[in-house]
Amino acid sequence: MRGRGDREHGRVRVLGVDPGTAVTGWGVIEQRGLKFYCLGHGTVATRPGTALAAKLAVIHRALADRCGEWEPDVVALEKSFVGRNVQSAFRLGEVRGVTMLVAANAGLTVAEYTPAAIKLAVTGNGRAEKAQVERAVVRELALKGPVAPDAADALAAAICHLQSARLHALVAGTRAARVAAS
Amino acid sequence: MRGRGDREHGRVRVLGVDPGTAVTGWGVIEQRGLKFYCLGHGTVATRPGTALAAKLAVIHRALADRCGEWEPDVVALEKSFVGRNVQSAFRLGEVRGVTMLVAANAGLTVAEYTPAAIKLAVTGNGRAEKAQVERAVVRELALKGPVAPDAADALAAAICHLQSARLHALVAGTRAARVAAS
Repeated sequence: MRGRGDREHGRVRVLGVDPGTAVTGWGVIEQRGLKFYCLGHGTVATRPGTALAAKLAVIHRALADRCGEWEPDVVALEKSFVGRNVQSAFRLGEVRGVTMLVAANAGLTVAEYTPAAIKLAVTGNGRAEKAQVERAVVRELALKGPVAPDAADALAAAICHLQSARLHALVAGTRAARVAAS
Repeated sequence: MRGRGDREHGRVRVLGVDPGTAVTGWGVIEQRGLKFYCLGHGTVATRPGTALAAKLAVIHRALADRCGEWEPDVVALEKSFVGRNVQSAFRLGEVRGVTMLVAANAGLTVAEYTPAAIKLAVTGNGRAEKAQVERAVVRELALKGPVAPDAADALAAAICHLQSARLHALVAGTRAARVAAS
């Protein structure tokens, strides 16, 4: 396990989360230089028929454990309210709240991305199909074994965060270069 | 402070919560015999402009502290997704998730009631106005000082839980009496 303390300068570690009451996906990606490495991924499944509050407690504990294990610098989440009904937005909100709480309690920032931004970052197409996104995640991270769909979505959110951060750095760098040249 | 341990048999203590990202209301009611007593009520306000995750952490800590202080037997919540849009259902869900987590971590059951059920229990009218509900709460609990609207809503949810429990007990009692008589 590599902690935040002994990590080299310039390395960023992101915990991506795909929240869901039944299955919550997670994945940890570290950027070293220009490359992304997947350190771990998986899902937290709750038992059907148990009370929602108990499910939330299971998800909370599992994500807090993942934060303790991988010590990410940031938590990336999909901002996925588009096209859903009020009832399912409500349910999804409940798991998202618990996810954000884990991040806040670990002192981490939460970065949210729209589904279109994630698809664009991972596949180059903001309207990509779910299966396309999953294949792109496997390719980008050179994953060997099988990846659960929810874990792939979590990894996609994490990739999106790193791509955005890279883009922001590039834009800032270009501006700084222009200022220096003028 | 009266803990769960030293409470007499037949007394039930309910923590009502009215979740909100900006203001979360809470209120503790204890039933002794046929009467309801308000033990405490208040609100948790978060600072505007801070990150949502940080707000959720503030709400989580405050509600966990209230649970520790009052040692309720159950947490009552309004199931209020009716007439709201997807975006606000999402936000509300996030605070609800954190509230349910507090209950689960304290080993408490969460009881949810629709706005109509709460209005009916408190005022006798399922379509009562907000101000009517607030006045009924103040009257029912013989509250002296001012009550914040969100705290009144939290107390209303708690009253609804105790009224429902009483009704269930009555129905069960009637059934038992019928069975005994038959």
